[in-house]
Amino acid sequence: MVRQPRPEDKFSFGLWTVGWTGTDPFGGPSRPALDPWEYAEKLAELGAWGITFHDNDVFPFDADAATRRDRCAKLKDAADKAGLVVEMVTTNTFSHPVFKDGGLTSNDRSVRRFGLRKVLRTVDIAAEMGATTFVMWGGREGAEYDGSKDLYAALERYKEGLDTVAGYIKSQGYDLRIGLEPKPNEPRGDIFLPTAGHALALIAQLEHGDIVGLNPETGHEQMANLNYTHGLAQALWSGKLFHIDLNGQRGLKYDQDLVFGHGDLISAFFTVDLLENGFPGYPDGPRYTGPRHFDYKPSRTEHLDGVWESAKACMATYLMLAEKAAAFRADPRVQEAMAYSGVHELAEPTLAPGESVADFLAADEDFDPEKAAERDYGFVRLQQLALEHLIG
Amino acid sequence: MVRQPRPEDKFSFGLWTVGWTGTDPFGGPSRPALDPWEYAEKLAELGAWGITFHDNDVFPFDADAATRRDRCAKLKDAADKAGLVVEMVTTNTFSHPVFKDGGLTSNDRSVRRFGLRKVLRTVDIAAEMGATTFVMWGGREGAEYDGSKDLYAALERYKEGLDTVAGYIKSQGYDLRIGLEPKPNEPRGDIFLPTAGHALALIAQLEHGDIVGLNPETGHEQMANLNYTHGLAQALWSGKLFHIDLNGQRGLKYDQDLVFGHGDLISAFFTVDLLENGFPGYPDGPRYTGPRHFDYKPSRTEHLDGVWESAKACMATYLMLAEKAAAFRADPRVQEAMAYSGVHELAEPTLAPGESVADFLAADEDFDPEKAAERDYGFVRLQQLALEHLIG
Amino acid sequence: MVRQPRPEDKFSFGLWTVGWTGTDPFGGPSRPALDPWEYAEKLAELGAWGITFHDNDVFPFDADAATRRDRCAKLKDAADKAGLVVEMVTTNTFSHPVFKDGGLTSNDRSVRRFGLRKVLRTVDIAAEMGATTFVMWGGREGAEYDGSKDLYAALERYKEGLDTVAGYIKSQGYDLRIGLEPKPNEPRGDIFLPTAGHALALIAQLEHGDIVGLNPETGHEQMANLNYTHGLAQALWSGKLFHIDLNGQRGLKYDQDLVFGHGDLISAFFTVDLLENGFPGYPDGPRYTGPRHFDYKPSRTEHLDGVWESAKACMATYLMLAEKAAAFRADPRVQEAMAYSGVHELAEPTLAPGESVADFLAADEDFDPEKAAERDYGFVRLQQLALEHLIG
Amino acid sequence: MVRQPRPEDKFSFGLWTVGWTGTDPFGGPSRPALDPWEYAEKLAELGAWGITFHDNDVFPFDADAATRRDRCAKLKDAADKAGLVVEMVTTNTFSHPVFKDGGLTSNDRSVRRFGLRKVLRTVDIAAEMGATTFVMWGGREGAEYDGSKDLYAALERYKEGLDTVAGYIKSQGYDLRIGLEPKPNEPRGDIFLPTAGHALALIAQLEHGDIVGLNPETGHEQMANLNYTHGLAQALWSGKLFHIDLNGQRGLKYDQDLVFGHGDLISAFFTVDLLENGFPGYPDGPRYTGPRHFDYKPSRTEHLDGVWESAKACMATYLMLAEKAAAFRADPRVQEAMAYSGVHELAEPTLAPGESVADFLAADEDFDPEKAAERDYGFVRLQQLALEHLIG
Repeated sequence: MVRQPRPEDKFSFGLWTVGWTGTDPFGGPSRPALDPWEYAEKLAELGAWGITFHDNDVFPFDADAATRRDRCAKLKDAADKAGLVVEMVTTNTFSHPVFKDGGLTSNDRSVRRFGLRKVLRTVDIAAEMGATTFVMWGGREGAEYDGSKDLYAALERYKEGLDTVAGYIKSQGYDLRIGLEPKPNEPRGDIFLPTAGHALALIAQLEHGDIVGLNPETGHEQMANLNYTHGLAQALWSGKLFHIDLNGQRGLKYDQDLVFGHGDLISAFFTVDLLENGFPGYPDGPRYTGPRHFDYKPSRTEHLDGVWESAKACMATYLMLAEKAAAFRADPRVQEAMAYSGVHELAEPTLAPGESVADFLAADEDFDPEKAAERDYGFVRLQQLALEHLIG
Repeated sequence: MVRQPRPEDKFSFGLWTVGWTGTDPFGGPSRPALDPWEYAEKLAELGAWGITFHDNDVFPFDADAATRRDRCAKLKDAADKAGLVVEMVTTNTFSHPVFKDGGLTSNDRSVRRFGLRKVLRTVDIAAEMGATTFVMWGGREGAEYDGSKDLYAALERYKEGLDTVAGYIKSQGYDLRIGLEPKPNEPRGDIFLPTAGHALALIAQLEHGDIVGLNPETGHEQMANLNYTHGLAQALWSGKLFHIDLNGQRGLKYDQDLVFGHGDLISAFFTVDLLENGFPGYPDGPRYTGPRHFDYKPSRTEHLDGVWESAKACMATYLMLAEKAAAFRADPRVQEAMAYSGVHELAEPTLAPGESVADFLAADEDFDPEKAAERDYGFVRLQQLALEHLIG
Repeated sequence: MVRQPRPEDKFSFGLWTVGWTGTDPFGGPSRPALDPWEYAEKLAELGAWGITFHDNDVFPFDADAATRRDRCAKLKDAADKAGLVVEMVTTNTFSHPVFKDGGLTSNDRSVRRFGLRKVLRTVDIAAEMGATTFVMWGGREGAEYDGSKDLYAALERYKEGLDTVAGYIKSQGYDLRIGLEPKPNEPRGDIFLPTAGHALALIAQLEHGDIVGLNPETGHEQMANLNYTHGLAQALWSGKLFHIDLNGQRGLKYDQDLVFGHGDLISAFFTVDLLENGFPGYPDGPRYTGPRHFDYKPSRTEHLDGVWESAKACMATYLMLAEKAAAFRADPRVQEAMAYSGVHELAEPTLAPGESVADFLAADEDFDPEKAAERDYGFVRLQQLALEHLIG
Repeated sequence: MVRQPRPEDKFSFGLWTVGWTGTDPFGGPSRPALDPWEYAEKLAELGAWGITFHDNDVFPFDADAATRRDRCAKLKDAADKAGLVVEMVTTNTFSHPVFKDGGLTSNDRSVRRFGLRKVLRTVDIAAEMGATTFVMWGGREGAEYDGSKDLYAALERYKEGLDTVAGYIKSQGYDLRIGLEPKPNEPRGDIFLPTAGHALALIAQLEHGDIVGLNPETGHEQMANLNYTHGLAQALWSGKLFHIDLNGQRGLKYDQDLVFGHGDLISAFFTVDLLENGFPGYPDGPRYTGPRHFDYKPSRTEHLDGVWESAKACMATYLMLAEKAAAFRADPRVQEAMAYSGVHELAEPTLAPGESVADFLAADEDFDPEKAAERDYGFVRLQQLALEHLIG
């Protein structure tokens, strides 16, 4: 049996995950909502370390300042009592119909101003709560129809919005970094910043991009038919993996938000391997040290018992995979197979130290492509070793 | 009837497109190959302006220097006689089995050195041919299994390779820019730089990124379940749309390389609208002025007659869509519908000129979200107007 | 301009389509609901011929018998006054959480009994309303996890349910046929009867399969990465195309329910061509003569004006495509191209009339495969002709 | 460590699997081909029980009768010596360009006659070899363009072809059953009989459908975005699971043909559970007892060592999953969780024995939907138990 999760595992949960009541496009709620502060104790008991929330997970859209303050305080209090950190806060700019065409990139400027203010106000809440990450998921920033958006303008407004928020964080001296959450579609037909790559590319154009990074979600990258672990790696390589959203997705369909590991299991194994063990050829290379945050939904078929079972399952699966990934890396047969496959060889620069291009082109190397083409890379054997560790 | 293509339309074709003989994973060639120089005259006659090629479209992988020179000269000669520009050249680092694990990111360093030399040698050819774009498609740079690659090392080697090539171009004083061609998969299970976004993000990390941009292909972005026109727009916004590959793809499957417009037709309409008419809110904004390059395959069911019919179809479809896009933009009903939808309003900054965040937050705006939520954006009507222009 | 729709076009709309208020997984309603009888007049004015509904589009889940009767009567009255037919009725066995694991295939037998009764009661309503089709969409019949269902039992229960309903229809002497509506996923991870093929295969196992056919939906087949027109053709070939649901879908993502034609436009053209013109080689072959029923959703960005615009767009697009498909079939160039491509040749049996297999095998035919392989099928040219008719 | 495969495991391999030389759309062979009879000994040594082949895996397309006979005899001899069964034979009607528009449904009748003869001739070979299954994969039966095919005619010709072959098998008294292999696309844009469902539906229309069933392939169903195990279950329920093709696929892309288990691992677990343990509620229900046939490709990065490693991996993974599936079913916690989830309850008919619909409708059941809606189905916990067995 897998060990119990512990605070140092840094597992955290969005309030909207265990708090999802099961409403979907074809049906209403299948279980009751608790009050936001009622989740903390149970999550702590299960072994979680932190919680996260959208502003409107805690107070209603139209709450006045006093209500906002009161409910946030009540939540903070519950978290403190339970020993939970509020590690991330984010803004809901997607549920209310005013945001039906987006918050930061709505065609309606008055909506953009309203949306941006809502985000900035939530930044203050994040800082008050002691969060260190401020996630921005622009779920309604997008379009169903190419003609309905000036795409250049949309990117300009996205940039303006992000730089305004990042500049505000700096000006207030908050210890917060922004994590952009890419998603290709749903609820919009096409969402701007559809993948980790597109978000990284946008960040490179920002004025305050130094405090803006990514919060990639397993299922979201997979909904773009992409390899999640590859996306995490490029974010890490770019110094931009600020936060993660772990869950499960079974192929190209609606956003499933399954329990972590209940989607593509082999992919989940390598995700955990990357998060826990880093890059094989770079023992001192970049590592992700942030929260292991779950953004999932307990299936609508489950009642409250199933909610807690599913939260436990997220953590248990992560821990099992972490154990297996450690054993995989430590296994001498794996080390030998990696060497056979040249996994570490890729860390060697292609040019020799100090080699100029002229020298490189002039070098008369004794290279026989026909011979080299016969190399057996041994990738299938290495994958089978991974599989044996995973299920063995 | 649509008018004949003309050189000023800047239509160009890869030699490998009309030259594809129909070999696919389940069958051999269904038609003969011509010699590379035999395509020029016919393409010119059909109205093309330029041709493009991989090194090994013109000479064999193991050709000696004299053969390479001779065959390139023969091709250039044929192009000149036909009045065709050689606008782009690229390297085949994917067909020979020596590249089975990639050219620039193979786990085998000796292969990387060989691959990089092959690319650099093709840069020289590109310059000699007078090409202005040097495309790099890393079709074998990738993996089937996450464990077979150190992903950090792969990005390091990709960067090293690109910077070496870009640095070489600069050092030689060539008038060449690099166009990276993203693709999510095929022939590898996962290809590095899977989308326009990931490639833009990598470029932002290069030393010589100023001469590195994108060559996005319709079907490749669509194979990542993404909106091609959105990808082009982000590339343009980033100043990086250096070249394009137009074709057709019908959903998530193998790379179909259909005739342009024979895939997602509404998407093709908006692609052409963007390329021809730019962004509605930015009359002086960035525009794509490069070649309209087709990277497609005449279906394997066609013999040589069908090859030429398909090349004609690519250009005819583009021209028809361009006419329709012009009429769409000029239609006062469309202008009215765009205004109703707020398309131009998105070009207005969210903050007023000179407005500070403090002022913005303090401004006591009379904004009623319930009222604003009732706005009818009219996006469906605008799309229907586009459809009427497209098929009306 | 396209002509106005007329009753003889047999356009019909689900009350839940124009009545959708915009609630989706990430947000609440963006426009008000009218009362069910308030849609009839406007739809008739726009040119619709019929309406369709789920029981709970007209009365609440927990309505008593009197309320059910009253509200149904009010709707029928409004339809009659507007000159609209109620052509199809269906049961909502998916919205209430009691159906969270399905109606006919829930693991809970008491739920199955409740669900089956609800369906049978709606059959009575359908008959009273004068509907001729009774659609059954088992949206919650499915699973997220393979272990949670005995798949053999699920098919047994589905069969039992369908045979019970079909048997009841016969026993009551109702003039009703059942139309099964396949869908691959959403709201369940995997839905039973995921495609037109699977539903046809199930029907072949029914006792009362003679009155059970299909109601295939454009987007549903496309969510299984399939060609909708091919699915319609197999249903027609099997004598089972009883009803259709037309809409638009842009690729593999959540169920978009766009306006018909706003998804894959070329596919929509060939769908209409099939529905209007039948099979080219079989002038007297099977034809679909039922309603042109739209099962779509006005985008959430639209308010009530946009709702009606979108309904008009569905019909206008269909009529435009029908005109174009007629012109396509009538064009002598198309006829010539079809002959060149051998389209009609496929209607000729492979064996000669009366030819035995022994004779066939013994026949010494002068067939040269190398020569035959050189045939230019001209499929691309034919497709381009279709495109020219579509957008020319 | 997993035990060695044994003949009673009934593992079989296509000669084209271990014999694939690595040619793909973007590159040539990466390893040499052996002669067909050279695979038998090694496969037997690894633990395989049988082999399978296409006619042209053994002799060239244009071989004369003597060559065909000789090479088949040589193969049979090698199989006998190695103790291997030739359990299935199939026809290549896709590689030669004469079949570029299909074998049984080509628009060209002379091609159809040629194709049908080739199939019938291969039936004789299958019978001579002692095979019990004759697979028919119509990889080229399809289209890229809807207008290029009369879809009714295509189904008529498919039916004619299948009935001719099945009739011939019967007339010759061969102990052979036909296994249709569905695939949605590749090499054609859309293939007829795209899924297990569509093939079952066609079989229901055949004259000789009693000896025609399915040979579903893991990756093929997954390329249609479908659940493979669900497809197997419907085939079993229909009495039509005659053969299987096991392999791995990672999402919606080209046909990957990975090692079994190297695709969607959780799905592979439940596939094996179904094959080994049948349906939980039907201990005496239908079971698949045929070969465990692998239709996969050793990755192109591997040389001959990797070929054999990959063949071993297919069998080892199957055996590991079989062990785990047995333990899963035997675990009392799983039994309890299945009971909690109502998995067996679904095997109970919805109507009571002898209950008429009239009685059923009249029965005054005390059913409270609000109460029933609160049932916690426990599906996530059950899935987590499966995961623990899989990786624990």
